[in-house]
Amino acid sequence: MKLSKLVADRTKEIPSDAKMKNHILLLRAGYMKQIANGIYTLTSLGQKACLNIENIIRKEMNFYDGQEVKFPVVMPKELWDMSGRYSSIGSEMVRFNDRQNRPMLLGMTHEEAAVHLVKNWVNSYNQLPCMIYQIQTKFRDEARSRGGLVRVREFTMKDAYSFHMTQEDLDEYYFKMHKAYEDIYKKIGLKNVISVKSDNGMFGGNMSHEFMYLNADGEDELVLCSNCDYKANQEVAECIYNIKDTCEMLELEDVYTGQAKDIAQVCEYLNVKPTECVKAVVFAIKGEQGSILCFTRGDKEINETKLRKLCGKEVVPYDASNDKEYCVGNIGPLNLKVSNVKIYFDLSLKNRRNLVVGANKPEYHLKNFNIERDLGEVEYYDLSKVKDGDVCPICGKKLKVSNGVEIGNIFQLGTKYTHSMGMFVKTKEGKDINPMMGCYGIGIGRNLACVIEENSDEKGICMPVSVAPYKVHIVPLRNDDKNVNKISTTLYNKLLKNEIETIYDDRDCGAGVKFADADLIGMPIRVVVSPRSLEQNMVEIKLRKSGEVFMVHTNKAYKKIIDLIKENS
Amino acid sequence: MKLSKLVADRTKEIPSDAKMKNHILLLRAGYMKQIANGIYTLTSLGQKACLNIENIIRKEMNFYDGQEVKFPVVMPKELWDMSGRYSSIGSEMVRFNDRQNRPMLLGMTHEEAAVHLVKNWVNSYNQLPCMIYQIQTKFRDEARSRGGLVRVREFTMKDAYSFHMTQEDLDEYYFKMHKAYEDIYKKIGLKNVISVKSDNGMFGGNMSHEFMYLNADGEDELVLCSNCDYKANQEVAECIYNIKDTCEMLELEDVYTGQAKDIAQVCEYLNVKPTECVKAVVFAIKGEQGSILCFTRGDKEINETKLRKLCGKEVVPYDASNDKEYCVGNIGPLNLKVSNVKIYFDLSLKNRRNLVVGANKPEYHLKNFNIERDLGEVEYYDLSKVKDGDVCPICGKKLKVSNGVEIGNIFQLGTKYTHSMGMFVKTKEGKDINPMMGCYGIGIGRNLACVIEENSDEKGICMPVSVAPYKVHIVPLRNDDKNVNKISTTLYNKLLKNEIETIYDDRDCGAGVKFADADLIGMPIRVVVSPRSLEQNMVEIKLRKSGEVFMVHTNKAYKKIIDLIKENS
Repeated sequence: MKLSKLVADRTKEIPSDAKMKNHILLLRAGYMKQIANGIYTLTSLGQKACLNIENIIRKEMNFYDGQEVKFPVVMPKELWDMSGRYSSIGSEMVRFNDRQNRPMLLGMTHEEAAVHLVKNWVNSYNQLPCMIYQIQTKFRDEARSRGGLVRVREFTMKDAYSFHMTQEDLDEYYFKMHKAYEDIYKKIGLKNVISVKSDNGMFGGNMSHEFMYLNADGEDELVLCSNCDYKANQEVAECIYNIKDTCEMLELEDVYTGQAKDIAQVCEYLNVKPTECVKAVVFAIKGEQGSILCFTRGDKEINETKLRKLCGKEVVPYDASNDKEYCVGNIGPLNLKVSNVKIYFDLSLKNRRNLVVGANKPEYHLKNFNIERDLGEVEYYDLSKVKDGDVCPICGKKLKVSNGVEIGNIFQLGTKYTHSMGMFVKTKEGKDINPMMGCYGIGIGRNLACVIEENSDEKGICMPVSVAPYKVHIVPLRNDDKNVNKISTTLYNKLLKNEIETIYDDRDCGAGVKFADADLIGMPIRVVVSPRSLEQNMVEIKLRKSGEVFMVHTNKAYKKIIDLIKENS
Repeated sequence: MKLSKLVADRTKEIPSDAKMKNHILLLRAGYMKQIANGIYTLTSLGQKACLNIENIIRKEMNFYDGQEVKFPVVMPKELWDMSGRYSSIGSEMVRFNDRQNRPMLLGMTHEEAAVHLVKNWVNSYNQLPCMIYQIQTKFRDEARSRGGLVRVREFTMKDAYSFHMTQEDLDEYYFKMHKAYEDIYKKIGLKNVISVKSDNGMFGGNMSHEFMYLNADGEDELVLCSNCDYKANQEVAECIYNIKDTCEMLELEDVYTGQAKDIAQVCEYLNVKPTECVKAVVFAIKGEQGSILCFTRGDKEINETKLRKLCGKEVVPYDASNDKEYCVGNIGPLNLKVSNVKIYFDLSLKNRRNLVVGANKPEYHLKNFNIERDLGEVEYYDLSKVKDGDVCPICGKKLKVSNGVEIGNIFQLGTKYTHSMGMFVKTKEGKDINPMMGCYGIGIGRNLACVIEENSDEKGICMPVSVAPYKVHIVPLRNDDKNVNKISTTLYNKLLKNEIETIYDDRDCGAGVKFADADLIGMPIRVVVSPRSLEQNMVEIKLRKSGEVFMVHTNKAYKKIIDLIKENS
């Protein structure tokens, strides 16, 4: 590919909201162009990189007997009514009526379509297990797209669905897929990847893992043990408390706290620590009257996923300042006069004594609040987020909270879909059962984004060979020099003939511009052909990532390139 | 792939509306499954075949310096407002509002996105020509889907867009793409393909060709000369008339025709030929008041595309029976008392004398109507469809009307989009001009459909090697026979190891069922391993399409298969 013809808008103008490296570099190097919020066109640089990732994934799926299929993007409401998800999924799913006024949707995932495809085909246990997968465009109308290709509205995804007669068989295949995913990340050049247990969310089912690319800008919070192998998504990370106050219970005391409302202000006013306070957080249930009031320790945050699971309902933060029943800033469990409220106590408050708590009247808190004495027996629930330094539920050592980007997920769905959609298979004994399902997703663009997060420097992208849209970037200096032109075009043509994708910088411009562009778009092997090096019949071959330089005889340049591609694949 | 695990629902139940071979066979052989009207899931048989077609196309596009990109399926209204197509395209384009209530659409084609991508990148003439293409899902909300994968609502398409400084450069590239398309059809095993000039339709622009797969069930009508090279889509095929009546003009005469209303009835009643009658056809203009009245020869049909071009408006058939101003069945040009009507005369009526025509009163026609005498000078327009036996506009010999399926199209768009979207490039002389565009489309599934129309027999599909999802289908007879099992699995594993996609029929069932299934799904090379042939250490290799059979020593089976694949690729 002649660089002068490569449709890729290298630019210095970057949207002010672009914070993540991949976002900035994909735009600056011309891998993509934004067409609307969270919707991008991929140039050939971006698309070729994605196709390389797709082919690595395809190979891995086929290795585990995956059958590549293609489900439609547009599906009819009836299909999704069978699983109940047409109504349970919110506005992130696009719905529209077709010209016959039939309600349709854009698929964000294809469990229903997978069951529809397999359902009539399978009769007998000896047809299972089977796995089908597709690599396909999906649209998810995200409220906030961000981070370049990390969170977009339209994206390409590989989604796979497996069917099994038994839990054991599902388990076995599930961990094969776990292995497949680890291998995929290795092959595309991602090292900082861990798998964590996660919440099954809208998919339903039993067990699931997320593959997380560790990155400070990642949206997901991960809880990792500094000592043992414990890893979990914050959403499901268990909180353990080994504090048990044994001090004497002091007398409950009304104290004036004036305008001190949040935990920090109250702590300062009363000279206590956040861990000695009770924090009140109010939620509403979507589409229902009333509120939910959670009490937790002053230094903790409520984990909405845990709360949602506990209530079995969709909870959302509630602005109680417009609710006259609540005395916001002074809410406490004693003398609370709120109607239609459900109250939960977090586990962090168990066995604690002499706490500071809101008094349910303006400008007052209570000191020396003791739940067991002042309220009697209450139930405690694990409702908070893990904090740095919390206790590992496995080994008891300290936990650390890190950020990550979810670059893959695998789920055990159990019989959720096969049951709701009436799919039956005969066992060896002739009994009809609903088979077990697993599903396995990986977003192509998001993986490209993380490849760039991990493989870049201040000058630009450092593409790994496996993903690089072009493997070689030839930079002839002084195109007008006959010898330079001859040697570089000969090498270019030889590479093309042998199907080594190569960029050739055919532009009439200075070495500085050419080097800067080569570094920015980041092909793994750069070849510089200059009048000076040709005096010794040499060309310079440089690895983009390591910076290693090889001066090679022109006769040996092709072979050296091939060797470098192999060594770095 | 073990046949027992292949998710592909072979079935005898075929929807009663399935008339075309590809429709019946794709369903019966389990290449696809319907999910809604015009929306299918492709099984791995269907998807692998499509991927093979995609790769053949990709290679061809890359050969002509195409850069593979990926445009989004979902695009914002604003982008399409720039070309005016957001409002000019009808209900075949899906429109919806996203969660922020911004109007969005599902792309059916990507001219706007192509200009958006290239617009800022290109400054100077030496960056052009360039061509970008994608292979991507499209949704077109067809009023009537039909013919299996011939006319569906969701489909995968390769669409390419080229940009040029001059008409000459566009012409040159346009005919390269014409060649590329011819090569693609050859490679995927389609012989009955012709290219015809066509109407540019909603794309706008100057010149265009459609590639038509000749097929009696095709929706498109093609006009072909029996003598010269003239080929055109009926929509744009020119009508030529070399009849000039010289007989005496007889006296106009009111004749009673009773209930005779259509041309056939009137001809019978008056004992005249259709060519001696004038036919009246009424149209309405979409969204406007009034009507359009066309007069043509009794044996001709009005060509709506021609009429639309003449009026420059969207015309639709008009049921005049509810319009009291029209005397339906007796409409004529004399004494017509219809308000707000535009009247057109077809070229076929020029130089004709003594015609039968409606009298604009119930149960009466006029005989001996002569336009030049009874109406005076009128303008004639070419508004009719070509009929079998009409005159070739090039050589004057007889034309034939055939049916075809459009399997590709190429358009010269001129500056329609670059002008409306304000894209400028500097010429060598420093002048800013709108570059010329070409666009080139080919539907993957529709091509697969035609491959099956052409390559099938009464037993099923006969896949060409290039498109076949699997190249080899091994049929061991008597799986319980140790030797059969050993020889066939050894061959299977050797083929897999060498990346020859192979189906292995591992089922415990009779030879009849196995042969029937192999013939139905239609892989090009069938290998039968039976106890009987193994007595001579032989296996049977059969070509699905030609039926040719080779008895080959077990040691030579692998090599023979490889040779057959090469010979038939």
